[in-house]
Amino acid sequence: MEYIDLENSLKYADSHWDQFVEDFKNLLRIPSVSTDPAYKDDVRRTAEWIRDEMVRIGLHNCRLLELGGHPAVYGDWLEAGPDRPTILTYAHYDTQPVDPLDLWITPPFDPSVRDGFIFARGAIDDKSGVHIHLKAVEAILMSTGKLPANIKFFFEGEEESGSPTIIPLIHQYKDLLQADLLVLSDGGCIDDQPYIITSTRGITSAEVKVRGPVIDLHSGSYGGVVYNPAHMVAKMIAAVHAPDGRIQIPGFYDNVRPLTPAELEYQAGLEEELLKNARLETGLDDFWGVDGYSFIERQTALPTFDVNGLFAGYQGPGTKTIIPSEAGFKVTMRLAADQDPSDICKKFTRFIKSFEQPGIQVDISTYSESRAVQCLFDGPIVDAIQAVYETTYGKRAILYRQGGSVPVMGTMQHELGIPIINLGFGNGKNGHAPNECASLKYLRLDLDTAIRVYFAYPSSVQKSNPFEPM
Amino acid sequence: MEYIDLENSLKYADSHWDQFVEDFKNLLRIPSVSTDPAYKDDVRRTAEWIRDEMVRIGLHNCRLLELGGHPAVYGDWLEAGPDRPTILTYAHYDTQPVDPLDLWITPPFDPSVRDGFIFARGAIDDKSGVHIHLKAVEAILMSTGKLPANIKFFFEGEEESGSPTIIPLIHQYKDLLQADLLVLSDGGCIDDQPYIITSTRGITSAEVKVRGPVIDLHSGSYGGVVYNPAHMVAKMIAAVHAPDGRIQIPGFYDNVRPLTPAELEYQAGLEEELLKNARLETGLDDFWGVDGYSFIERQTALPTFDVNGLFAGYQGPGTKTIIPSEAGFKVTMRLAADQDPSDICKKFTRFIKSFEQPGIQVDISTYSESRAVQCLFDGPIVDAIQAVYETTYGKRAILYRQGGSVPVMGTMQHELGIPIINLGFGNGKNGHAPNECASLKYLRLDLDTAIRVYFAYPSSVQKSNPFEPM
Repeated sequence: MEYIDLENSLKYADSHWDQFVEDFKNLLRIPSVSTDPAYKDDVRRTAEWIRDEMVRIGLHNCRLLELGGHPAVYGDWLEAGPDRPTILTYAHYDTQPVDPLDLWITPPFDPSVRDGFIFARGAIDDKSGVHIHLKAVEAILMSTGKLPANIKFFFEGEEESGSPTIIPLIHQYKDLLQADLLVLSDGGCIDDQPYIITSTRGITSAEVKVRGPVIDLHSGSYGGVVYNPAHMVAKMIAAVHAPDGRIQIPGFYDNVRPLTPAELEYQAGLEEELLKNARLETGLDDFWGVDGYSFIERQTALPTFDVNGLFAGYQGPGTKTIIPSEAGFKVTMRLAADQDPSDICKKFTRFIKSFEQPGIQVDISTYSESRAVQCLFDGPIVDAIQAVYETTYGKRAILYRQGGSVPVMGTMQHELGIPIINLGFGNGKNGHAPNECASLKYLRLDLDTAIRVYFAYPSSVQKSNPFEPM
Repeated sequence: MEYIDLENSLKYADSHWDQFVEDFKNLLRIPSVSTDPAYKDDVRRTAEWIRDEMVRIGLHNCRLLELGGHPAVYGDWLEAGPDRPTILTYAHYDTQPVDPLDLWITPPFDPSVRDGFIFARGAIDDKSGVHIHLKAVEAILMSTGKLPANIKFFFEGEEESGSPTIIPLIHQYKDLLQADLLVLSDGGCIDDQPYIITSTRGITSAEVKVRGPVIDLHSGSYGGVVYNPAHMVAKMIAAVHAPDGRIQIPGFYDNVRPLTPAELEYQAGLEEELLKNARLETGLDDFWGVDGYSFIERQTALPTFDVNGLFAGYQGPGTKTIIPSEAGFKVTMRLAADQDPSDICKKFTRFIKSFEQPGIQVDISTYSESRAVQCLFDGPIVDAIQAVYETTYGKRAILYRQGGSVPVMGTMQHELGIPIINLGFGNGKNGHAPNECASLKYLRLDLDTAIRVYFAYPSSVQKSNPFEPM
């Protein structure tokens, strides 16, 4: 029965593909640049366009959710029955700005097809994510009259401007968004190789300023009697790492969750390839890190401390014989799973404060940004998605740990307390750059992938007790 | 007999004072800005004017000495006899630039007398030094037909532009400049309080650049596996000072000459006043330094290491999540008596090189600039000068150790190997600033001071073996 529904859905997608591409173009035409206030109305227009599409394909409760920023779009279909799991799908409909405009071969909001690619700002990041999920549901609903699982769509409009209202928004609509699985659909595959991001690190950042004398002093007159703020900054930074590479901020590693043996074994198989890429990108032959850990663990599973900027005194050509009155540094700390950003901020602050001494004033600003996320790495839904990729792409996805941070993932995992799977549909080129484009071939393949995954949900996603989030 | 000569010289100075002020104005009128090529001919014209004055007052061998830069002016009078000491006097006739010109009340090279001050660029730094020595010798020679000691004048024309050719020049004319005492006449008294600088520190400077990856890297993607150049710079700087404030560069203190008990005792009396000044200038209540030394020793007799500038990565507002590809710092090291700048450069380089590790490339540039100088602090000539100040100013000079560096002093002491006494005649305001001016009252007093010191040379300066420099 479900097999026939799947076949009908795939057939519907196939016969409506040209129309789907036209619909995609219509979505791409609305310039939803969230970071530029000039596009404020366009961003809202995009949200309304999506809401209307949700209504048209038969979703319920379709509406904009907002708390002062750009609206998110919500819609659901919850008639699969109480024995079926509920799937929350996240994507974002806003885009990066288009500068430098003169490098675009065709206008960024006038979608144009060339050599099998559709060129437009947002084509892969992340209107393709919104589009494929809408079209998968449309194909299934239109051809079968129902969906295999209960679904909730939550499409954000602020991702490219740092998601300023996403935390209160998710907190406010926590109950509305409750589900058994969160499908994050931002990212994608590269040519014929699917990727599934299985983790991101969290992040906190900080800025430290050290002040000494009220003005820059002559290094002859006061060298030897005034403590140099630049020396203090060096002392602070040098104290962070032990010779074995570990971070010596007290309590820093308290809650770090180690990789499971299964992940360790899997990642070991990727190590050589990752090292090869790293050598190419950095120009380095030799890498570094905490003793006793593999490259991939250091890069994705351990927390870090990196100075991003350092300043004091005179930086121009030649010499200026001063003791600078001020010095400072900026730092980002990447966090491992289970580290709490605000706890790390407190520990960092305490550590830096311990350097205070007479004649030196220390100002610390910390920014608790986001938690690390451990998405599903194995289990029934990962197996099901891998099986789908084997059918559509002819190969399994690479399970990819990401060293960077995706704030919205951390927020959603923390607020909703549900498992996350990453299933992105941006397959193309030039995200965040001129001439962003999506491959029509892989867009087509991704639609089939999405439809098949929807049919795989019921048998692979565990229904949690709706009153007790995991 | 000499007593009568002194009286006659002082009378001559008194009766010719108005003419002497006119001569001073003529010297001040020539714009000898050594650092600006536009004034190149004027600098030479000033040198020629001084040479002609030397000839007029009866000096011999008057000529310009030069090695490609601005000329120095030389003249001597060596007929005092072989039993009399030979005194070499250094001053400089070039001046600072005049910017900002619009802050001058009267034009900088059109000397103008107001409220007892003569306003012009160079009035105290250091044409007054040149002028007072010329006029002292003129008064003595004109009124007595001879001088109490053999004298050599050596007036530099490049001091305000960093003395680029002074080292080879002094080396080349080492024999011509040989003497029993070097009188440095750059500096001066403040109102009614004479000062004698008894020491300066030497200086070497260096710049260190640390390179890691070929480009700035994403701190998420490479945090934990790439060694951060900013951390290396911090590690290097933090390793320099021990907790007791001592510099840990191996061999750094090898040749440091400690203060004599006599100096220590004298300086202890100045400590409270120096601390009061330091608090005012720095805004600090608490000072720092090597354990077990007084403020004045730390400030003037011990070597230092001070970072003047520090840079890495992003320094603008907000955050940039990078591992910077490069970091660096600039440093000046002040040197104590008997430290060799080029030896310190070698030791610094060896120390920094020891931090090299795979993935980090270190570039070091060092500049061996000048040696510390210990001028005469006690002994017959200091006593004689103090006695003169008691007569003319009514008080003894403060013997002042200077934490900064005067490269030409180090060069002359090293090349000529003779004792140095500091006897400056710049008493006024605004050196290096708009409205530089000399006090006519103290200029008059300084001329008497100079004449009396000339008569004190024979009994207080020890004649060294002319064939064996001290």
